[in-house]
Amino acid sequence: MREYIPGEQPNNLTDVIKLNTNENPFAPSEAVVAAMKKACGQSLNRYPNPTALSVREIFAKNTGLHVDNVFVGNGSDEIFTLLFRGFIDSGDLAAFPYPSYSLYYTMAEANGIDYDKIPLDEHLDVQFDDFLKKDYRLVIVANPNNPTGKGCAVESISSFLEKFRGLLVVDEAYVDFYGESVIDLVGQFENIIVTRSFSKSYSLAGLRVGLAVAAGDIIEGLLKLKDSYNVDSIAEAGARAALLDEKGFRYTIQMLRSNKEYLEEHLEQIGFDIVPSKANFLLVKHPAIDSRNLYERLKERNILIRYFEGPVQSEYVRITVGTMMEIKSLLNEMRALI
Amino acid sequence: MREYIPGEQPNNLTDVIKLNTNENPFAPSEAVVAAMKKACGQSLNRYPNPTALSVREIFAKNTGLHVDNVFVGNGSDEIFTLLFRGFIDSGDLAAFPYPSYSLYYTMAEANGIDYDKIPLDEHLDVQFDDFLKKDYRLVIVANPNNPTGKGCAVESISSFLEKFRGLLVVDEAYVDFYGESVIDLVGQFENIIVTRSFSKSYSLAGLRVGLAVAAGDIIEGLLKLKDSYNVDSIAEAGARAALLDEKGFRYTIQMLRSNKEYLEEHLEQIGFDIVPSKANFLLVKHPAIDSRNLYERLKERNILIRYFEGPVQSEYVRITVGTMMEIKSLLNEMRALI
Repeated sequence: MREYIPGEQPNNLTDVIKLNTNENPFAPSEAVVAAMKKACGQSLNRYPNPTALSVREIFAKNTGLHVDNVFVGNGSDEIFTLLFRGFIDSGDLAAFPYPSYSLYYTMAEANGIDYDKIPLDEHLDVQFDDFLKKDYRLVIVANPNNPTGKGCAVESISSFLEKFRGLLVVDEAYVDFYGESVIDLVGQFENIIVTRSFSKSYSLAGLRVGLAVAAGDIIEGLLKLKDSYNVDSIAEAGARAALLDEKGFRYTIQMLRSNKEYLEEHLEQIGFDIVPSKANFLLVKHPAIDSRNLYERLKERNILIRYFEGPVQSEYVRITVGTMMEIKSLLNEMRALI
Repeated sequence: MREYIPGEQPNNLTDVIKLNTNENPFAPSEAVVAAMKKACGQSLNRYPNPTALSVREIFAKNTGLHVDNVFVGNGSDEIFTLLFRGFIDSGDLAAFPYPSYSLYYTMAEANGIDYDKIPLDEHLDVQFDDFLKKDYRLVIVANPNNPTGKGCAVESISSFLEKFRGLLVVDEAYVDFYGESVIDLVGQFENIIVTRSFSKSYSLAGLRVGLAVAAGDIIEGLLKLKDSYNVDSIAEAGARAALLDEKGFRYTIQMLRSNKEYLEEHLEQIGFDIVPSKANFLLVKHPAIDSRNLYERLKERNILIRYFEGPVQSEYVRITVGTMMEIKSLLNEMRALI
């Protein structure tokens, strides 16, 4: 069994500039930290709510959906694991764009599911028509896609669903940086699951909370399949506070957008080609330096960015948008290297 | 698919005396709460350590084992799910004592695994010889057993392992109240997995942390099978602090043992038959009142105890040891009912 290999996680973060796993460089908001601290002192001897109900209620209210359309997982990782365990059988065929988040491929392999990698087009866009060429039972599309950062239009997903008979998962881990969600399609189609993460826009990667949004019978299936208490009480409190703290959320998104613009502008000045990104990371390459070499030289300088093996993506490196200080250090090292 | 049905979890705990799910009635120690609060303010924007390494290190040190013998799960629930996913194939046969923790049966069913329920003997003890009658691939024994509270001797498990060729899981969720662990057998046998929980003796049911202790290749299998980041940073910090806080741990165990003695003594005075328990709960019955009726009458009075359908166990109710105030309220209501 091949394992999913996440980006390097150094033990000591203080000496390293970590721009390799698309984490938010900012701490969670004060309101969120306060809510978690409060939860630490309350009834932790008791089992948590089995479905993190308060998170489902607030998310449903914010989006005009019903509680029965929302599932809370121990990170969106758990949601993908449950989908592969319960919503596709060996013998069924799955399809994912390539390049995309490699977890989809490794999960399919771990679960004995055959799948096709459907190449992105020459602009690194998802070609939905290619997903209609066979009878795919499961398709997962990240929107914005990772590692490209490119977004699909809601209309292209909606017109795909008009024709597609399998299950479409739209992984919206990075949607808050994009702004164009397909969540409204949940009311129109029975075969779409939208997943969300608190790890990126909400700065809560350390907490492990993800959401699945779908028709009631899909959510019911996920609830049956999950462990009795999959999300702990502090995670529920943190996620709930994050959904309620609109001000903190908007501030983070704004800061990251502005940092991203700065990073793009200066990488261009150095001569990088940049894939136009809707997410909190940039896929870039430079005509004067091989991407693996760039990754390794920066790593020697304690700056971690992401390099992926494999066709197309190995031409590039992926850089997570960090703080202004991190960006400036990165740019300085790059200027010295190139 | 049949779901595991946990005990009732009322939303409002303030009006209810909750003695139905074997939670610890005391809050986690101050040191543990302080450690979790500290973790709320630190680097939650970063992914947690993928294996909760600090918990593995401390547990290994405390028990004389190696880090490679210890796995940390999102509750021991996750560990059982991983065992059923990765360590037994459809076509294999499993066996569990009956009565025991019903999660084993429902997990086997959910994973399409055939199993035998091996009845306890007339003293409600596990008969290990009965688990040698067929070629069982997986046996799970809770020690102390739930809902009986009875413990098996280390020697009976060790001599069973001399003859058994399958995988034996010893679920030690309640072992800290018992004091007799089989963890030392991990060094002697390649086919034992000992599971532990932080939900009971450590008062951390709300946090979701469990351990598996086994030979290195079993732990490696669990690590491959789990999601990338299955235990969150606050849970890791809380579990770590709990393992280090020997004083707080001893205090809780002592309090609960003394409360249990008080409860036993007074239930006997009222005329209850009590199964001798090594855990933080008592399985009891009364000649003058039907057990389901007792459960229902107490529920009307906002006292939750546990009633289980099914042969043998439906003759009894299971009562979790609570605080002295909770015990006194329970005894008062019982005296009024009987």
